[in-house]
Amino acid sequence: MNNPVTIDYTHFEDLEVGQVIDLGATTLTRDMIVSFATEFDPFPFHLDEKAANASLLGGLSASGWHTGAIALKMLLKNFPKKLASAGGLGFKNLKWKRPVMVNDTIGGSATVAALRRTRSNPQWGVLTLDMNITNQKGQTVMVMTLDNLVEVRDPSTDGAEATK
Amino acid sequence: MNNPVTIDYTHFEDLEVGQVIDLGATTLTRDMIVSFATEFDPFPFHLDEKAANASLLGGLSASGWHTGAIALKMLLKNFPKKLASAGGLGFKNLKWKRPVMVNDTIGGSATVAALRRTRSNPQWGVLTLDMNITNQKGQTVMVMTLDNLVEVRDPSTDGAEATK
Repeated sequence: MNNPVTIDYTHFEDLEVGQVIDLGATTLTRDMIVSFATEFDPFPFHLDEKAANASLLGGLSASGWHTGAIALKMLLKNFPKKLASAGGLGFKNLKWKRPVMVNDTIGGSATVAALRRTRSNPQWGVLTLDMNITNQKGQTVMVMTLDNLVEVRDPSTDGAEATK
Repeated sequence: MNNPVTIDYTHFEDLEVGQVIDLGATTLTRDMIVSFATEFDPFPFHLDEKAANASLLGGLSASGWHTGAIALKMLLKNFPKKLASAGGLGFKNLKWKRPVMVNDTIGGSATVAALRRTRSNPQWGVLTLDMNITNQKGQTVMVMTLDNLVEVRDPSTDGAEATK
């Protein structure tokens, strides 16, 4: 399966609606949580146990942006073959359903929800992924729907007709 | 205005629909961009000039998640008084409109789009912010609509009736 010489990327044509990518598992340590929050999201409930215990979240928890960035990292790492992505377009309906607490292990899945090509940009297709991020108890902590531009292997195929 | 002894937080009642928060300015250096991307978003066009120059984005650019995290940081830093937040709920319709390139300076605004209280949770209100992130040329690089839980100073006021 693996070719040691050339990298075989996942192109638009290799994707199927309904395909599920398992995201593996990442444990968020106190150091990781405090380090990210110190830089980007310095609320007391992400930095200090006393303040966190007194907060609505009931304990030290990760910045939601941190959870999102780790979900992204897990997605890229766990794609069966490296994704031939040209970058993200954005996402819809991100919801933080539950806090991610110190030493929680997150995982979950990304499901190919839609694949769309256009006649105007035959070299790129839009991949829509539904991400469901869970904790070690199987509870959903975050959901989001992500749109990403993915390279088409053979742009000479008709863009609009090739939409799956 | 500043009280050196007690911190005077921005509570739900202090916010007004239409209020605009200026986000200041942050320059994204090559080191910042590569450091974040190495950890969370290791695509070649965020890491390496040669690959980046050959990519759709035409040069080394920041991870969109990095832009988002910096926008969050600027929001928290530039609130007139520290926001009495209990955490984010999520966001809608995040769009990366243009890449943020090495040494671009981003800024922009957050506008209070909606303020909503419920009878079921009189102690918290939902603040909806429309964020518009721009570069040094005044071009929009990212937009998103963020929902955040904010502490109510006087929960005895009727939640639903107090909705502005």
